[in-house]
Amino acid sequence: MEAIRWEHDALLLLDQTRLPAAESWLRYTDYREVAQAIRTMVVRGAPAIGIAAGYAMVLAARECAGEADFPASMSRAKEILAASRPTAVNLFWALDRMERCGTAFGPDLSRLEEEAQAIHREDIRMNRAMGQAGAELVPQGARILTHCNAGALATGGYGTALGVIRAAHAQGKVSMVYADETRPLLQGARLTAYELVRDQIPVTLICDNMAGALMAQGKVDLVIVGCDRMAANGDFANKIGTYSLAVLARHHGIPFYTALPSSTIDLSIPDGSHIPVEQRDGDEVTGFAGVRTGPAGVQTWNPSFDVTPHNLLTAAITERGVLRPPFDRGLAK
Amino acid sequence: MEAIRWEHDALLLLDQTRLPAAESWLRYTDYREVAQAIRTMVVRGAPAIGIAAGYAMVLAARECAGEADFPASMSRAKEILAASRPTAVNLFWALDRMERCGTAFGPDLSRLEEEAQAIHREDIRMNRAMGQAGAELVPQGARILTHCNAGALATGGYGTALGVIRAAHAQGKVSMVYADETRPLLQGARLTAYELVRDQIPVTLICDNMAGALMAQGKVDLVIVGCDRMAANGDFANKIGTYSLAVLARHHGIPFYTALPSSTIDLSIPDGSHIPVEQRDGDEVTGFAGVRTGPAGVQTWNPSFDVTPHNLLTAAITERGVLRPPFDRGLAK
Repeated sequence: MEAIRWEHDALLLLDQTRLPAAESWLRYTDYREVAQAIRTMVVRGAPAIGIAAGYAMVLAARECAGEADFPASMSRAKEILAASRPTAVNLFWALDRMERCGTAFGPDLSRLEEEAQAIHREDIRMNRAMGQAGAELVPQGARILTHCNAGALATGGYGTALGVIRAAHAQGKVSMVYADETRPLLQGARLTAYELVRDQIPVTLICDNMAGALMAQGKVDLVIVGCDRMAANGDFANKIGTYSLAVLARHHGIPFYTALPSSTIDLSIPDGSHIPVEQRDGDEVTGFAGVRTGPAGVQTWNPSFDVTPHNLLTAAITERGVLRPPFDRGLAK
Repeated sequence: MEAIRWEHDALLLLDQTRLPAAESWLRYTDYREVAQAIRTMVVRGAPAIGIAAGYAMVLAARECAGEADFPASMSRAKEILAASRPTAVNLFWALDRMERCGTAFGPDLSRLEEEAQAIHREDIRMNRAMGQAGAELVPQGARILTHCNAGALATGGYGTALGVIRAAHAQGKVSMVYADETRPLLQGARLTAYELVRDQIPVTLICDNMAGALMAQGKVDLVIVGCDRMAANGDFANKIGTYSLAVLARHHGIPFYTALPSSTIDLSIPDGSHIPVEQRDGDEVTGFAGVRTGPAGVQTWNPSFDVTPHNLLTAAITERGVLRPPFDRGLAK
């Protein structure tokens, strides 16, 4: 399963706002429209956003290859793309990498295209490596709880948290995956459950508020989630609801893991308080899949992410292996 | 605001499955249809279910008043009503009370009608008393988190948890109520937010998975929820998600209260492990209001309630005052 395809003159994105009801691909030739696709979550998931932004920079380079001040034009494109969403650091990481490539080689489209494809390829490779490393942590017969979608659809392919689940499942270790539906945009129901059903991995969908009761009944052996940005001390931002799960896992003595490629690590910030968290439109909260549910006149609070402090994290799974506390030392290495 | 009306020859129920989009009243003259209305949650909330069942027994008495074995017919009606939902104990409490009245006075319809109306009236009076007792626990400028709907719609009127909020608001103490939307049936969004907007009490709607982040940001001074059944030791069942909130409140050092009339207390069971918890249809989890969000082929887990152990409860607010630990002694009194 994949959600991002490159066709040399265009970027194709699987419209994730319409899954699982419809599998429709959208075609982009203008980088500004890719920025809009990131904003509206046609493409979402920290690694996937980075990959899409990389290809968008190729589209930008094509547009301004003939311009006098190519670097300035690329900088403007980068700014527009960077303004699409604030939390996932992979976006800025990929844009910086593409800008460096543009600065080094100028409007060499094949070189830029190669760089974007390298970002894409490396991401899949990192996911596979994370899968192998993380599967070691999964006990035989494991019942695993996950949140949001950190799967093939959130990455170049295979997935981070779902990559670990896929690798553990291939080893015959997974007896059940519990997927939080993940309000407000329901990536757990629409994307994670969809990926796992397609891969014939046993999956049970629950509402977000059922996770505590599930743990209390002894039905969860470990929790694994993705990551949108990890600070130098191991604090990390991920989809809203992750923090609640971390507290619940701690209360029940259940291991709590995040899986992330090194492109998601931001050593420039000391801790999670420096991670900007996007507030999204209140309509996401007052409605459900297009059905209005809240009354007119109600206020809303709709942060897209929350920050989990490193002391609630059992281990971080990266493509270079499993990091355990103290995270600051491991991350710096 | 009220959701239950008695018209001597019929029971009127505000259809809570259609709020807030439509305010439509349904008319019942057959007790079997009232049982179905409880099952499908046209009427819901432990106290409201008890009140509706009381009136349903009047409808049953009218139907079988001329029968040779009136007590046996009433027993059959009671069984049908008792089978509608298993968790809220108020249902069984009200049915027992109506049966005792029928046994004592026979098919005396005015007597039975008076008993059902007494159950209804007493509930409102108890809610007012709980409101006064609970408001004492609310600090000036309080930001209060609540879950599901324990309001006028869940009771004879005024509400249990929302009764406390209404009383505290009347005293000028409430700066904000945060309402969990409460998946799968969204009673928080559809009913609680609706009640509070109508009463001009400031309310902010959040998704269930945002409660932890809200607490971590210091935006919650206390949590107050309703109750569907409390065991002799203070363990209590309430809408799924309540237990997660109790764990989160404990982690953040936030007081956690439940408000309940004495009809919700079940001294016949020693602890929460004896409370039966209803599993509802998986369709509630894979979609909402007819919109499908989960993929075909996904399994679901859908308990309607969870059980919060008494050691996570700061105090229980009843019509006779505020109970603090040890709850077993206070409840027995």
